Amino acid sequence: MPNRRVYFFGEGKADGRGEMKNILGGKGANLAEMTNLGIPVPAGFSISTKVCTYFMERDGVFPDGLEDEVTAAIRKVEAAMGTGFGDPENPLLFSVRSGARVSMPGMMDTVLNIGLNEKTAAGLIKKTSDERFVYDSYRRLIQMYADVVMGLDIEAFHAILDARKKEKGAWHDLDLDADDLKSITADYKTKVKELSGRDFPDDPMEQLWGAIRAVFDSWNIPRAISYRRLNEIPDDWGTAVNVQAMVFGNMGTDSATGVAFTRDPATGERVFYGEYLPNAQGEDVVAGVRTPRPINLAQKKKGAEESLEETMPPIYRELETIRQKLERHYTDTQDIEFTIQDGKLWMLQTRTGKRTAEAAVRIAVEMEAEGLIDRKTAVLRVEPDQIEQLLHKRLDPAADYDVLTKGLPASPGAGVGRVVFTAEDAMGWAESGDPEKSKTVLVREETSPEDIDGMNVAQGVLTARGGMTSHAAVVARGMGKCCIAGAGDIKIDYAARTFTVDGTVVKEGDWVTLNGATGEVILGQVATVDPELSGNFATLLEWADEFRQLGVRTNADNPQDAARARSFGAEGIGLCRTEHMFFGEERIKHIRAMIMASDEGERREALGNLLPFQREDFEGILEAMEGLPVTIRLLDPPLHEFIPPDEEIGQLAADLGKDAEMMKARAEELRESNPMLGHRGCRLGITYPEVYEMQARAIYEAACALSKRGVNVKPEVMIPLVGEAKELSILRELVDRVAREVIAREKASVDIRIGTMIEIPRAALTADEVAVHADFFSFGTNDLTQMAYGYSRDDAGPFIKEYVKQGILRRDPFQSLDQRGVGQLVKMAAEKGSQANPDLHIGICGEHGGDPDSINFCHHAGLAYVSCSPFRVPVARLAASHAVLKARMRGFH
Amino acid sequence: MPNRRVYFFGEGKADGRGEMKNILGGKGANLAEMTNLGIPVPAGFSISTKVCTYFMERDGVFPDGLEDEVTAAIRKVEAAMGTGFGDPENPLLFSVRSGARVSMPGMMDTVLNIGLNEKTAAGLIKKTSDERFVYDSYRRLIQMYADVVMGLDIEAFHAILDARKKEKGAWHDLDLDADDLKSITADYKTKVKELSGRDFPDDPMEQLWGAIRAVFDSWNIPRAISYRRLNEIPDDWGTAVNVQAMVFGNMGTDSATGVAFTRDPATGERVFYGEYLPNAQGEDVVAGVRTPRPINLAQKKKGAEESLEETMPPIYRELETIRQKLERHYTDTQDIEFTIQDGKLWMLQTRTGKRTAEAAVRIAVEMEAEGLIDRKTAVLRVEPDQIEQLLHKRLDPAADYDVLTKGLPASPGAGVGRVVFTAEDAMGWAESGDPEKSKTVLVREETSPEDIDGMNVAQGVLTARGGMTSHAAVVARGMGKCCIAGAGDIKIDYAARTFTVDGTVVKEGDWVTLNGATGEVILGQVATVDPELSGNFATLLEWADEFRQLGVRTNADNPQDAARARSFGAEGIGLCRTEHMFFGEERIKHIRAMIMASDEGERREALGNLLPFQREDFEGILEAMEGLPVTIRLLDPPLHEFIPPDEEIGQLAADLGKDAEMMKARAEELRESNPMLGHRGCRLGITYPEVYEMQARAIYEAACALSKRGVNVKPEVMIPLVGEAKELSILRELVDRVAREVIAREKASVDIRIGTMIEIPRAALTADEVAVHADFFSFGTNDLTQMAYGYSRDDAGPFIKEYVKQGILRRDPFQSLDQRGVGQLVKMAAEKGSQANPDLHIGICGEHGGDPDSINFCHHAGLAYVSCSPFRVPVARLAASHAVLKARMRGFH
Repeated sequence: MPNRRVYFFGEGKADGRGEMKNILGGKGANLAEMTNLGIPVPAGFSISTKVCTYFMERDGVFPDGLEDEVTAAIRKVEAAMGTGFGDPENPLLFSVRSGARVSMPGMMDTVLNIGLNEKTAAGLIKKTSDERFVYDSYRRLIQMYADVVMGLDIEAFHAILDARKKEKGAWHDLDLDADDLKSITADYKTKVKELSGRDFPDDPMEQLWGAIRAVFDSWNIPRAISYRRLNEIPDDWGTAVNVQAMVFGNMGTDSATGVAFTRDPATGERVFYGEYLPNAQGEDVVAGVRTPRPINLAQKKKGAEESLEETMPPIYRELETIRQKLERHYTDTQDIEFTIQDGKLWMLQTRTGKRTAEAAVRIAVEMEAEGLIDRKTAVLRVEPDQIEQLLHKRLDPAADYDVLTKGLPASPGAGVGRVVFTAEDAMGWAESGDPEKSKTVLVREETSPEDIDGMNVAQGVLTARGGMTSHAAVVARGMGKCCIAGAGDIKIDYAARTFTVDGTVVKEGDWVTLNGATGEVILGQVATVDPELSGNFATLLEWADEFRQLGVRTNADNPQDAARARSFGAEGIGLCRTEHMFFGEERIKHIRAMIMASDEGERREALGNLLPFQREDFEGILEAMEGLPVTIRLLDPPLHEFIPPDEEIGQLAADLGKDAEMMKARAEELRESNPMLGHRGCRLGITYPEVYEMQARAIYEAACALSKRGVNVKPEVMIPLVGEAKELSILRELVDRVAREVIAREKASVDIRIGTMIEIPRAALTADEVAVHADFFSFGTNDLTQMAYGYSRDDAGPFIKEYVKQGILRRDPFQSLDQRGVGQLVKMAAEKGSQANPDLHIGICGEHGGDPDSINFCHHAGLAYVSCSPFRVPVARLAASHAVLKARMRGFH
Repeated sequence: MPNRRVYFFGEGKADGRGEMKNILGGKGANLAEMTNLGIPVPAGFSISTKVCTYFMERDGVFPDGLEDEVTAAIRKVEAAMGTGFGDPENPLLFSVRSGARVSMPGMMDTVLNIGLNEKTAAGLIKKTSDERFVYDSYRRLIQMYADVVMGLDIEAFHAILDARKKEKGAWHDLDLDADDLKSITADYKTKVKELSGRDFPDDPMEQLWGAIRAVFDSWNIPRAISYRRLNEIPDDWGTAVNVQAMVFGNMGTDSATGVAFTRDPATGERVFYGEYLPNAQGEDVVAGVRTPRPINLAQKKKGAEESLEETMPPIYRELETIRQKLERHYTDTQDIEFTIQDGKLWMLQTRTGKRTAEAAVRIAVEMEAEGLIDRKTAVLRVEPDQIEQLLHKRLDPAADYDVLTKGLPASPGAGVGRVVFTAEDAMGWAESGDPEKSKTVLVREETSPEDIDGMNVAQGVLTARGGMTSHAAVVARGMGKCCIAGAGDIKIDYAARTFTVDGTVVKEGDWVTLNGATGEVILGQVATVDPELSGNFATLLEWADEFRQLGVRTNADNPQDAARARSFGAEGIGLCRTEHMFFGEERIKHIRAMIMASDEGERREALGNLLPFQREDFEGILEAMEGLPVTIRLLDPPLHEFIPPDEEIGQLAADLGKDAEMMKARAEELRESNPMLGHRGCRLGITYPEVYEMQARAIYEAACALSKRGVNVKPEVMIPLVGEAKELSILRELVDRVAREVIAREKASVDIRIGTMIEIPRAALTADEVAVHADFFSFGTNDLTQMAYGYSRDDAGPFIKEYVKQGILRRDPFQSLDQRGVGQLVKMAAEKGSQANPDLHIGICGEHGGDPDSINFCHHAGLAYVSCSPFRVPVARLAASHAVLKARMRGFH
């Protein structure tokens, strides 16, 4: 067994098992599992992912002995199916498909109908009496093989097909007859010879090995690499290759092919949800070439074509039984592929069904109610990153709009953007930096794997063809991107860069709005609203709260954000920046006067004018967070951020009654070569103590005023950018002194809590010294990352992108905490800090506080809370519970 | 004993010992030691430094019981000296002096003649028959006490004295008679009452306690704080107070006072070297008010007044005996103070003599030869920081110049600068940022402790009065600053800001040159030369080399610097920066073309033009360092450093045949908000691999060419700014590939060694991962400090200065490695790196590589070498041996 590289399945018995995904890939493991469950699966075998790794490392060499193992497996398949590979009398055809540990839909290559040549074709015709089907299969083989295995230009083959259709006045492939397809097959062969200089291979074994090789190779084609990067799939996992006996959904009217979800993947509703195409191969459904029909009456819309439930009732009932068996077995929603050949049902694949965030939440909560899973499992079933979309905009229910047309509601949410017609344009406009152009809606006939990057940056995706399981729909749901598929009324003219609906012409750059919940396409920009946290979503998060140990706070600078975050479950403010409060028109005047002051006296005067504004700010925010802690960071950025541009200095000087030249000189003096490493944060507090004094006074005056009105306030003052313990000890003393003065004067009772951000590497390294002066630490992982890597966030964008592309960085360290490097500083500081000061309360308030991986890290680093932007609060609640539950699964408590 | 706070000494027996400096201060410990050695020392007692600390912490409160201990000690002094404190018949007078662990000459306060009032004055007159002396002492007491203890304006007292001198037509104080001084004493008392509202205290005990309190308080006067900062003396050491029976050098013609060094402190020559003043108190010598006489014939210049050897031969012989006893006892040069009272010699002080670097080296080498000390001790006797001056400029021996005047060669070296007349001006001009003004020579009648900061920034110091042991001379020697003292021919007019020598007027701002070796003052700027490393200096460094374990390399970018460093003992180049090579006129053109290239092709073309230049550079430097390793760092700075200023872009565009607007846009694109954290170092190597390719090619083509000519070359290629191991692995592969290609093509044999700088905190944190791709690590502690602290070197100057002033930072971390913070990263990286790669060779090439404290740290962190600027190489050799020897002294081997 340990050296086995080829795993057979068939006739109710498989070499592999469902949990062997690492070796068999998801598809192969499930085929084995389904076989073992007694579900009808065409026989076949899987070649291990280890062979892929071997093959890659040795630049395309297979391990010794593989050929013998494959040959032995073919013999078993022949026995199971009662056919022979290459047997002209009773030919066996194979599909050859990829299958990685996790699904990468459409990313890698597939070759079907392996084993056809003139002899087996003749045999198959004799056996099926269907020459049209056989030549259709044969020409499909050549077309795929030429493309995937031989790397020839696929357009040349499309051209042959299209030319024939034109000649015959045919619209669908189905309108071509056997002779047409036979002739096309011949033309294809000629074309192969012409383009490659070689004959199309007749030998079934040669075909098979070519296909196996091509599927392994396709692990490293650009779209697959791009998908892996987007989904963080390691390059060294490799793919398995599944070689399986072909069954045919295109053998006539009692044949069909289809895909289905055991529950609705968009809403999560517990209905059998699927589509099928009579007399077709599976690729036709997935590629969205023909719009498929519903599998049952429940989904049948008025005027739609007959459902499978109506056309083949016994098959539908068998399918329904299998659906239930699969859900009970896997205790999760399955995405299945099936083919009906000559009235017999074959299951080709089952896998965990991708779903929208909304569906994920509903399925998890309902499966718990059904007793299929427990609460822990329900909580773990929803990916934290996915749920942010549930809190993002939907169309304003109060908005009035006219619907241009409707398509299938393939992925919910709202998408408001300018029409573009290519993925390249979507990317180009998004990167243009022009805010007028950056929001786009990508409009395509259908999408293909090459479009992924473009879909990723667009606000929404609209396709004219394809169903709920088309490429566009599946990928968009995975991305949490709004998508409307199969909007058949729209006619796209790529050349003119327009689409038309009933005479209305929509041009590139025009605004459109997509309503992913309904499938409505609307001209112009429709207002959107922020949704509430309620229903199943609220239930799931309450369950999550039962498990999590990390507190979740929010980063908010004003009462509105604070209130919203609170409604999303925030348990306090972890970071209230005070500098954003200075930009109001009335305020910027005073802050500029403060900066331009010639001496401490002038500075104090300007600060005196700012005090009432700051006090008001703090009253608002402390009141909005009544009963919860509010961590207020004192002034942090370099002063020059508040300096007016050169051309405004004259006016400012006049306003302040100062000399413009002197002001310019002062502005010049404040300018820094590397402001991020300059005179900012507590360095300002040390050199201009009166600034922090004013802020401390405003905070405690606000707190005392509220406290005297009976409001329970919990202000915490945070000193930024500490790199040396003495900075904190000096400024702590200053804030403490002011706080005591104010509290004594006001005869109020307010707790004084003073702490620091840990954002300078040296503060982390000397955290034991810093901690003795701090009531709390809050990791400012943005700056910590900036300095640990030496990456300026303002400048590093271009090369970080390049680094991620080249695989030098796994992810942008500003998005997901670098656990190997920056994480060491976090752990070190948390440990040293806690040892030196056992009462130290430790959290994180960098952007990473809303990133699930980073939250998991913070949990294990022993932090008390994370703080993130309001919309990430639910994400953080869920991620924090995942951290606990996943550790339990690994045996930690 | 443990609770003893007052330590008596006298009559050949002392409570303290020489090694008790921490408690008794240097002066107190030596008085005890001398007493125990049987040397004649006036009796007295020392109040412990612990009392100072107690006193400071409690804002001026003395510990209980101190008063009783002091009173008991006074009784013992009275018994020893046969006099009584406050006894009108036979009065005992006390001096009250400070004394810290290390000498802080003139920094703290002293009060003399404590115990005088009308009654004891009368008694003393009766005893000495010298009314003039007694009233002179009395008025001195009042003057000092009013100043130091009572804090009154000293100028008011000078005015009284000057008025009287004017009235009498007197030039010297000596020209005033007893009546004058008696009348002055009365006027002083009136003035005290007028200014303070209080009578001058008559009670000797009140006088004594006031003086003790004032001396303790003087630990925290600004000039003392400033001196401690400059000399890195901790604030919490505190001072002892030495209360000692007064003896008088001003009791008539067979009285005198003097200071001496057991060897010449300027040259180190083994001669008894000193000065005395007949009929004077010690303050007169040190303050430089009168120009003193030589103590012996050996030093007597033509026309000088009689030496002590001539005027008091027996005393001189006794002094000579004591000199020898002291040198044998202390095995080091001593700086002694003595007083002759009525023909009896009293030793007032002995301490380790300050000396110039030249003297330190000569004394150490000669004492070893004399068998006084061993080689280790000799090496330890010379401070590494001090010897850099031995390598700095002296006047060019070939230069022709006219001497304006001559003074005493008080401190050697050359000082070329513009004349200023106040310490404030010296500082102001130095900080002006104007290179035309920054170099000054400070010209004063005499200097005082308030002038220290100004002396520190000046190129040299010139005084009109004072001798070889005057304030200016002592302080300048300590600083290693060129000084000419007692140039009596110069007449200074502070008001006019000029000085005059025989009718030649020299104005503020005029250039002068001082020759510290000869005492010559020269108008204008005389050329200077770099000296060689030879003689005693070479011997000492050879001894140092016997002990040190660290290698010493140099940072050099051109063959001249490399050759110089090699002559100073550099064992290789630790950092050869390649970007400095791009600034030549021919080169900057190509580098700009490279930067402005629109695509890789254009970039490669420009790089091709640079290749020959780089190859030539590397040939030069590799040849200069034949047989030694040369670490060449690939391009490091952000490209925009090479961009021409906006106004030159038009011309550049024309030269390159490009569109100026496009060029401006490209320049804009390259501009960064925080270039230190931007697109630079290996990030450029990753995104523009062709740049590093060209550099690697140039290096190995140069190496191969030399190797084929039989030159032994050892190039090492260093990749800068690595933060993630993959950066290094990619670029290592690139350099390695190019190197192999070149070596194979040239059929040469050159070792390929590729390593990285550790300058990004994350590289230190993940050093285990980085090390597997590196042959060596070199710590770039400049950047490492920059990022660990978040301090931009370009911007942080102003607040770092403020931080040092406030004591938040002990030293500027860019000058001396921050061992507590940045040092952790260095240790961590060295440990992790060596564990992951046992062959890893580790050094340091930041500025810290030349700082003795940092070198000591590097030794203990297990580094293999330090690299520093050429002139610091000898410093590093010596510091590296000190690291070993000091560790041995602490019991480590």
